[in-house]
Amino acid sequence: MSSHIVLTSHPQTQRNALTGTQIHWGASTAAERGPIIASLTTPAQRNAIGSHSGAYAVYRALAIAAGRLQADHRPDLTDTSPAAAIGPHPQWRDAQRIVSMDPWGHLVAAEFAERIAAGEDIRPTIAVTKAHINMPELLGAIAAGRLTPDGDILNANGDVKVTKAAIDPVWYLPGVAERFQIKESALRRALFEQTAGMFPELVTRPDLKVFLPPIGGMTLYLFGDVAQLGRPETRVACRLHDECNGSDVFGSDICTCRPYLAHGIEVCIEMAQQGGVGLVVYNRKEGRALGEVTKFLVYNARKRQQGGDRAETYFARTECVAGVQDMRFQELMPDVFHWLGITRIDRWASMSNMKHDALVQQGIEVVERVPIPDALIPADARVEMDAKVAAGYFSSWVPDANELAQAKGRGLNE
Amino acid sequence: MSSHIVLTSHPQTQRNALTGTQIHWGASTAAERGPIIASLTTPAQRNAIGSHSGAYAVYRALAIAAGRLQADHRPDLTDTSPAAAIGPHPQWRDAQRIVSMDPWGHLVAAEFAERIAAGEDIRPTIAVTKAHINMPELLGAIAAGRLTPDGDILNANGDVKVTKAAIDPVWYLPGVAERFQIKESALRRALFEQTAGMFPELVTRPDLKVFLPPIGGMTLYLFGDVAQLGRPETRVACRLHDECNGSDVFGSDICTCRPYLAHGIEVCIEMAQQGGVGLVVYNRKEGRALGEVTKFLVYNARKRQQGGDRAETYFARTECVAGVQDMRFQELMPDVFHWLGITRIDRWASMSNMKHDALVQQGIEVVERVPIPDALIPADARVEMDAKVAAGYFSSWVPDANELAQAKGRGLNE
Repeated sequence: MSSHIVLTSHPQTQRNALTGTQIHWGASTAAERGPIIASLTTPAQRNAIGSHSGAYAVYRALAIAAGRLQADHRPDLTDTSPAAAIGPHPQWRDAQRIVSMDPWGHLVAAEFAERIAAGEDIRPTIAVTKAHINMPELLGAIAAGRLTPDGDILNANGDVKVTKAAIDPVWYLPGVAERFQIKESALRRALFEQTAGMFPELVTRPDLKVFLPPIGGMTLYLFGDVAQLGRPETRVACRLHDECNGSDVFGSDICTCRPYLAHGIEVCIEMAQQGGVGLVVYNRKEGRALGEVTKFLVYNARKRQQGGDRAETYFARTECVAGVQDMRFQELMPDVFHWLGITRIDRWASMSNMKHDALVQQGIEVVERVPIPDALIPADARVEMDAKVAAGYFSSWVPDANELAQAKGRGLNE
Repeated sequence: MSSHIVLTSHPQTQRNALTGTQIHWGASTAAERGPIIASLTTPAQRNAIGSHSGAYAVYRALAIAAGRLQADHRPDLTDTSPAAAIGPHPQWRDAQRIVSMDPWGHLVAAEFAERIAAGEDIRPTIAVTKAHINMPELLGAIAAGRLTPDGDILNANGDVKVTKAAIDPVWYLPGVAERFQIKESALRRALFEQTAGMFPELVTRPDLKVFLPPIGGMTLYLFGDVAQLGRPETRVACRLHDECNGSDVFGSDICTCRPYLAHGIEVCIEMAQQGGVGLVVYNRKEGRALGEVTKFLVYNARKRQQGGDRAETYFARTECVAGVQDMRFQELMPDVFHWLGITRIDRWASMSNMKHDALVQQGIEVVERVPIPDALIPADARVEMDAKVAAGYFSSWVPDANELAQAKGRGLNE
């Protein structure tokens, strides 16, 4: 570590010819596109803002500060390559289709093998593995006769074979700005100033077009033969799920998150058993990307307000605390479907109009929308469901004003 | 937004007398300690580095860039105050006991009501609410006779009453440095340089002692009467759980995370039914704080290595990829126990020596350690369990070298 601290860097007129600096986003091959280099072991080779592992970069820095990790450690990528092949798909060669992840992110060890051997520190931003999962709800679905074990995709003991992918965010800033129809310079400036000064290079290095933001990424769970993806005849079922730790893990009854997720997985297993592919996208966007502290503050305000917890004031309580109803930005969400080569979703286990509209806007067809079965909605989650349906969620019924005005949520001390 | 971009700020010799700039960490009262002001609506009042909501600050910046959120929005905290009283406890008045969260973080609306009314933008970093949770495993425990519904804490339908708290990280940098026995300046510099330049104020503002890092925080689930906490006679059961999304939500069978969590909750419910308090601490530290991409790369390397997936090489495969076995830093973890006034844990549902030793080092007594029942360990998770026990995990048995050399994990294509 030199004694001189560089607070921010500035564009160089002459790039170092030895490094893979130029990124040609949307190029046809990985070699033409060029590797994204965000490691800190050889700062001169960097061609991106930020660093790897999303928010976990802070833990890496702490590990170095505490003397537990050598600052110059490089990952040994032996045996880590994808356990199932994904892509390349034609969508990867379009700079506007995929702007918030690196489509080549799982293939760097193979695509850039020579450059890595020559000393460039190129790291994967996607990892693909295989697993068996088992959720108690699936055993329930087998017992109820809704699912039938086949001994391959679904075992009689409830075990399900999946292919999983973990994806870290990689933002191509001109593409992200275009998706929101704002200027790249305005995006860069807001990301810098409105985070209290994260990454001065956002404003000092307009030549660096790629940013690895310190936020959570996503996980995919794929059911069936992923090699079928990208073929027009392949039928696809999907649940697109935004994280809700309180329900997903602990089964909190104020929302429908885990019940709808479990139902979506049933739909995915059925599709795989019929020869199609099932897909669950799990996005780390807790509490509509407002975070859990804000979420719990809103719960208290909902339960305590005059007139009790009711659908007509459901969104208003969030806006009072957070200033907006939602920060999930479904505009970027379709990227992962382009990455998988998906152009049509045959069965869509979601009622969200925001998610639906974002997909359609990106040219992805949604054939059948599958609402959550009424029996799976916990009593206290009725407030949320009514509010969302009244606001445009897909449903066969729409509650009237009287319905929305009724307090249906439990009080805080019940 | 002014046209001039300030890349970083520098210490002022004269602080603005109107603002609550001085923070006296560890002071006896909230008023003496002073509010932590990290909002961006009135930059001159800030007395901390970073901003609120952890990594979700990036989404907030995006919301402003996209024109969806007014940059000057301030939260309306009406009706948001804690649904159950926690503290103050004597530990809050010790600058060294709690260094990674704000003990007054849930009380700001009340403690700083006048200052908020006078225009200071002071925000909660902790929210406390109440909920009902329901996990299928608990119904199983009732059916098996391990748990008995009491109609209050545990209902016959499996519903459990809990008090929940969401906690965002707030680091007092001198205290964090001391916990790791390093210099504050070295900590600041590594956090800045090894994240590729996050927050220049880490190095330009040594006068700002508090940092809100953009990382995930934690969630607490409390069972029983939280008012009993802090009394020496109160018996406490605890499961300290570090996030593992693949198991916690989807039931992946390569580890024991969800089964041990569900078992820990059983232990907590029993303790609450006996008049004590149960506590689950859920830390957002996916894949030992290495993140899920690294975790899946390691899974592939473990499954593909010569000789198959076995305990003797379990930690080595992580080190090859990540450079370390673990980045969770249990050193900071005991803070939340001090916050709750806990000095003794009577039943501790964890086998981790790292967690145990970190608690003991902070003066918290651990009476009985409760290992995961053997029947709850999935077959594929045997590799992990053997490796951890051999490395020092608490257990009644220790596998020998022959045991550790046996490949017990499934191959990638099984």
